[in-house]
Amino acid sequence: MQKHELVIVGGSAGGIQAAMCAQKHHGLKDILVIRMEEKTVVPCGIPYIYGTLGSVEKNIIPDKLLGDASLKVDEVISIDRAAKTVTTRGGDEIGYNKLILATGSNPLQPPIPGMDKKNVWFAWKNTDYLEELAKAIEGVGDIVVVGGGFIGVEFADECRKKGHKITIIELLEHCLQTVCTTDLCMRADDAIKKSGVEIVTGTGIKAINGADKVESVSLQDGREIKCEMVIVGIGVVPNVKLAEEAGLEIGPTGGIKVDEFQRTTKDQNIFAVGDCAEKYSFFTGKPVPIRLASVATREGKIAAANLYQAQWRNIGTIGVFSTVINNTALSMAGLTDIQAAFLGYEVVIGEAEAASKHPGTLPDAVPMRVRLTFDRRSGKLLGGCACCTHAVGEVVNLIAAAIVNGMTMEQIAMFPMGTHPWLTASPLVYQFTDAASNALHKVKQTAGA
Amino acid sequence: MQKHELVIVGGSAGGIQAAMCAQKHHGLKDILVIRMEEKTVVPCGIPYIYGTLGSVEKNIIPDKLLGDASLKVDEVISIDRAAKTVTTRGGDEIGYNKLILATGSNPLQPPIPGMDKKNVWFAWKNTDYLEELAKAIEGVGDIVVVGGGFIGVEFADECRKKGHKITIIELLEHCLQTVCTTDLCMRADDAIKKSGVEIVTGTGIKAINGADKVESVSLQDGREIKCEMVIVGIGVVPNVKLAEEAGLEIGPTGGIKVDEFQRTTKDQNIFAVGDCAEKYSFFTGKPVPIRLASVATREGKIAAANLYQAQWRNIGTIGVFSTVINNTALSMAGLTDIQAAFLGYEVVIGEAEAASKHPGTLPDAVPMRVRLTFDRRSGKLLGGCACCTHAVGEVVNLIAAAIVNGMTMEQIAMFPMGTHPWLTASPLVYQFTDAASNALHKVKQTAGA
Repeated sequence: MQKHELVIVGGSAGGIQAAMCAQKHHGLKDILVIRMEEKTVVPCGIPYIYGTLGSVEKNIIPDKLLGDASLKVDEVISIDRAAKTVTTRGGDEIGYNKLILATGSNPLQPPIPGMDKKNVWFAWKNTDYLEELAKAIEGVGDIVVVGGGFIGVEFADECRKKGHKITIIELLEHCLQTVCTTDLCMRADDAIKKSGVEIVTGTGIKAINGADKVESVSLQDGREIKCEMVIVGIGVVPNVKLAEEAGLEIGPTGGIKVDEFQRTTKDQNIFAVGDCAEKYSFFTGKPVPIRLASVATREGKIAAANLYQAQWRNIGTIGVFSTVINNTALSMAGLTDIQAAFLGYEVVIGEAEAASKHPGTLPDAVPMRVRLTFDRRSGKLLGGCACCTHAVGEVVNLIAAAIVNGMTMEQIAMFPMGTHPWLTASPLVYQFTDAASNALHKVKQTAGA
Repeated sequence: MQKHELVIVGGSAGGIQAAMCAQKHHGLKDILVIRMEEKTVVPCGIPYIYGTLGSVEKNIIPDKLLGDASLKVDEVISIDRAAKTVTTRGGDEIGYNKLILATGSNPLQPPIPGMDKKNVWFAWKNTDYLEELAKAIEGVGDIVVVGGGFIGVEFADECRKKGHKITIIELLEHCLQTVCTTDLCMRADDAIKKSGVEIVTGTGIKAINGADKVESVSLQDGREIKCEMVIVGIGVVPNVKLAEEAGLEIGPTGGIKVDEFQRTTKDQNIFAVGDCAEKYSFFTGKPVPIRLASVATREGKIAAANLYQAQWRNIGTIGVFSTVINNTALSMAGLTDIQAAFLGYEVVIGEAEAASKHPGTLPDAVPMRVRLTFDRRSGKLLGGCACCTHAVGEVVNLIAAAIVNGMTMEQIAMFPMGTHPWLTASPLVYQFTDAASNALHKVKQTAGA
């Protein structure tokens, strides 16, 4: 029987990062990554296959990132924790000293009549499936996208670039509303509508209709929308069957229960990372259903660092999201106003908008906006969003840094930012610091000071 | 005699920000800003007048930012601290309760023979002067820029866009070396050379030659360079005559001495902000000659907050710089390696480079690089630089946030960043966190672990 010091089950973002970091941290050479796919797609890149990229081949994570780790394409079907072995569908039994589960997630398939019809598609992370989808899209006209989350709006934006008429169906009042503050969602809705994509909000899908293949969808509000394809992007389900059958604990959001060192609660030699693992909120310590590649890679690093002793503590998940719709970039970190209020924080909002370059007479200077959500009692930053230039992809990380470091309104208002005519707003009106000043001002006003 | 609750002397970045924030913080209406200029130029925008913008008029800070503050165009020539009045060149005597000095700086004029010749120019923040320079540039061919700091390289980059042959003369080994780590300076040098601008480093100017107007410059190494204009950008001298004559203390870098609340050390009713004020290092608390508009605005905010009680403490200046040369963006925050070593830190460098988008097959994906300097003993971040996409203008603020919050290698390696295909590197190789991982790896290797 072959045996490896470290076996990693799953080779997407979390698994690859764990393999990379186990080598960096411990100089480990004897690592085996077992994954089901011959090639691993870039998970966040999937929508771009259908517009900008043009092929699945252009959206592959290079295996060279695995370094000295070995790769086995197979499916692990069971874990024997007592014997410290895994068994694969191909019939191999492989021993491990340490095991990292990075089995990911599958698209959520709602129990709606007609889901089994031809031309109903999901964002499966499988190259063959995604290639078939590419061919199928070529042959259809109008498309309905079910779910106005990130995956949904990105699919819509890419497919409309190819000339398809697209309608997004979103159960909530706005797109992106599960994780974004309403202010930002409304800007997203605007960008989507301006691109020519239609949005139907506040209602869900009742049925998918058609003889054999999709012909229309029926909405819960009674409307019917004709279409030739349905793409469903309403969330993911952690892939935990293997862990569950091995007797590992599953948490309330459906992920494998782990401690703050990414160790599974029942077996300290088995770690879980990425979409398959339970996440805990930075703010409350309680389980949160935030599943992102950036979170998966962070957990991969943490698990790798903790293989032999508890070294790195996961501070929890704050949720940092960005997207680009019709060249409008939108980003969000931390709690939305609704989430913050729900958790009992007394919310104070600070807002600032200014030209993205200075002076504003420079070519391509456009309004750039930052909106921050603070807790009045502690003064601390809870969340923030930014739009609409591409720089917000990094501004949101500045917001995230302020959140994890517990920065207050005052500290942010005084933050020693750098500015430059071509790259940022004027220092007189720099949005991140100005939004904090704006919040402070509101606190003073309501305090009667 | 007219009297105002708050008088601000100087109306550039620091003065304007102080006027804005005194209104926000204290609801002050009775503010008088006295400045010498009819219009205030955007200080960092000056080089862009001579290429991209095309006129001084496009580089003016709008006076509407002053809000309810009154504006008087005049020069304050003396302060009577006992009587709490200022006297202007126009002959007015004006009373104050609180006084903020924001008198700025003037270009440093080195004692070199020939400095008085026609067509030797400096970056004076004066609209008439800058308009004359615009006309003068139209009429000349080759230009020598003395000083390869930010102002020098930006003047060079804009003027070469207009077709002038430019040579930069820099005393140090590389451009930008006073404030940037050598690694970044070399990239700046490359970008400058690729743009067609020549750089002569490691030597200074001995004399400016010509009958009446500039015909050539003689270098200390014996060379002579023919040119029709010389633009000198080698630093600034704080404008402290007024303060000095009023008996206020001047610090070792030539600025008005202030405490951590921006109050002058000799008079708690007088504050100083911006280029005219002494700065203190975030790292050492000792005076540092870092004079930037972004620092000036921060000090303006702090002074305004502290007008009536000590409220906001200045944490010190870390130095955050960005520039764009020939569309190559470069940014730097905190200590250079040389500065860090000089201060006794045991320096550990972490580096990471990855495609600016992911997958790297997306259009316009280019290498983006982050380099971080840590202290081995504490693990804390001391400085960092990033290049070469425009996003580094905000990445450097993320680096600055990590510095001021005392983040360590481990904390940064685990930082919960957000990523997006269009906006950032892949989460597997995100440069900021990866550079910290790289530094950690080096520490482990040298520790023999």
